[in-house]
Amino acid sequence: MSEAVVSTRIRLARNLREYPFPIRLSADKAQEIVAKVGEALTDCGIKFHKIDSDNVSDTILVSMIERHLVSPDFVNGERGRAVYLSDDNTVSIMVNEEDHIRLQVIKDGFALDEAYELADKVDNILSKKLNFAFSDRLGYLTQCPTNLGTGMRASVMLHLPALDMSTAAYRIGANLSKLGLTMRGLYGESTKPSGAFFQLSNQVTLGISEKAAIENLKNITTQLIAQEMRARDGILGDIEVEDKISRALGILKTAKLMDHSEAMSLLSLVRLGVTSKKLETLSADSIDKLIVEIQPASIMSRCGEDMSPRDRDIKRAEIIRNKFN
Amino acid sequence: MSEAVVSTRIRLARNLREYPFPIRLSADKAQEIVAKVGEALTDCGIKFHKIDSDNVSDTILVSMIERHLVSPDFVNGERGRAVYLSDDNTVSIMVNEEDHIRLQVIKDGFALDEAYELADKVDNILSKKLNFAFSDRLGYLTQCPTNLGTGMRASVMLHLPALDMSTAAYRIGANLSKLGLTMRGLYGESTKPSGAFFQLSNQVTLGISEKAAIENLKNITTQLIAQEMRARDGILGDIEVEDKISRALGILKTAKLMDHSEAMSLLSLVRLGVTSKKLETLSADSIDKLIVEIQPASIMSRCGEDMSPRDRDIKRAEIIRNKFN
Repeated sequence: MSEAVVSTRIRLARNLREYPFPIRLSADKAQEIVAKVGEALTDCGIKFHKIDSDNVSDTILVSMIERHLVSPDFVNGERGRAVYLSDDNTVSIMVNEEDHIRLQVIKDGFALDEAYELADKVDNILSKKLNFAFSDRLGYLTQCPTNLGTGMRASVMLHLPALDMSTAAYRIGANLSKLGLTMRGLYGESTKPSGAFFQLSNQVTLGISEKAAIENLKNITTQLIAQEMRARDGILGDIEVEDKISRALGILKTAKLMDHSEAMSLLSLVRLGVTSKKLETLSADSIDKLIVEIQPASIMSRCGEDMSPRDRDIKRAEIIRNKFN
Repeated sequence: MSEAVVSTRIRLARNLREYPFPIRLSADKAQEIVAKVGEALTDCGIKFHKIDSDNVSDTILVSMIERHLVSPDFVNGERGRAVYLSDDNTVSIMVNEEDHIRLQVIKDGFALDEAYELADKVDNILSKKLNFAFSDRLGYLTQCPTNLGTGMRASVMLHLPALDMSTAAYRIGANLSKLGLTMRGLYGESTKPSGAFFQLSNQVTLGISEKAAIENLKNITTQLIAQEMRARDGILGDIEVEDKISRALGILKTAKLMDHSEAMSLLSLVRLGVTSKKLETLSADSIDKLIVEIQPASIMSRCGEDMSPRDRDIKRAEIIRNKFN
């Protein structure tokens, strides 16, 4: 189903019983928690390395947002935060973001069960050594009441170019809240959809089990994929759409300047072409990786932090040309 | 100098003393003139074939306009017209257009002297057998007073993309009338410039010799070419311009639908890239030929006369893709 699902994420929010929430936490206590999480991860079977938010540049941190390894809140927040990243970048554990612990698993494609299984495994590892704030009545206690209960946010990154062309994606998005789900742009709350990429996630954490929430998300996702595929059948015979897709590849192969928004739109069209077997070029996986590489901070963390937007546009075009040629 | 000059044309207007101008000519008399011109061309050393305007479709006739072999007036005019075309299409002799005879020579590149020499040669051949209307005081008599005298219109087809980008071409165009010249679009009077192609020709036919008119046109053309080349030096380092040129080729190689105006703009950019050694692809000559092939009637005369504009846009994109790939 990777035609329409780029990736799957599970995020669990946890807090330590004996500390106040990060918003009221002293610097010393924050460091204590960072250390405790590090200890809990020692010899757990997965290799982690620690990144202190105070020791890396903003560019590096923003490039981590672009790769969905940390949240915008993590980067914008107070000092004294850290993230533990597994060597393959599949598991990231933010410490002292909104909650003491934000454990996240990210997997390619539509893989809710696998992602949850791994998140649950790491959660168990942590819970053996750490004393999670948990109420029998409410479940896991979190700073924000919208996370209370499971503390879980499960989400899929969808690529819905055909629904997007018909603006149906927005209509569908508006109805999802009735189903306990929410649809957003590529980088979460308050970001606009770009290149027809949408993030679909569960909204309800209280009074529902993790399994039930995941099943619900899985069902709706499956329906959305089916709608997208029907919409693709409807448009892919159109010469106008074929023209757009084909030109998109031509432009990606030749442009010398490209801003982020144009790159996203063109890569989205080429991804549609590739997954619909209308184009032969990079695989959908390679395009998904390229989409991360051409984000502004990812370019800067690779090529120099003092790049102007124009320099980035030149570099972005070059990265894309090299990849496609 | 073919960087900036696509082709050169010389046209001579002649009338037969013993006949009224075509506008007052009977069908019988018109046919007599067609026959007389044919006889005059027999065994002249150049092989001609005759095309009767009554025997070919409008599509074929319009495609001949697109190739500059006949004029729009020739196609839109009364019945009983004919054109004698040399086998290599270099010489065309329209009979019973505005004047009895419109002799035209077209050459690739900047070749005013060669074109005039050949026109003069054919003019001499015709004048041996035909009795041209000529006044010692006025020169050759023509229906429209603007052609009186030499009856000659010398013109060069210029490609001025750099001047066009700076809109300098229009400013220059406005000043040319003071120099006895006029600048127009690709298909003569009242056509708009397309793809930065301009037609520069002499306006004055009375009180000036053919040689002097040609020298004047040659001098101004040389100055315009120099201005264009300076303007190119000014813009060709710009990444924005390089981007435009490079993308143009990418789009031409991949589009599945392309209207005439977009094709002209993109081919113009690619021609700029090729003649400035910024792109390696088709030669400027091949691009110039392609520009003719993708004109609407040329497509229809090749692929079917009942094509819709959309069918033509599909076919145009296909012709262009095949040429560039």
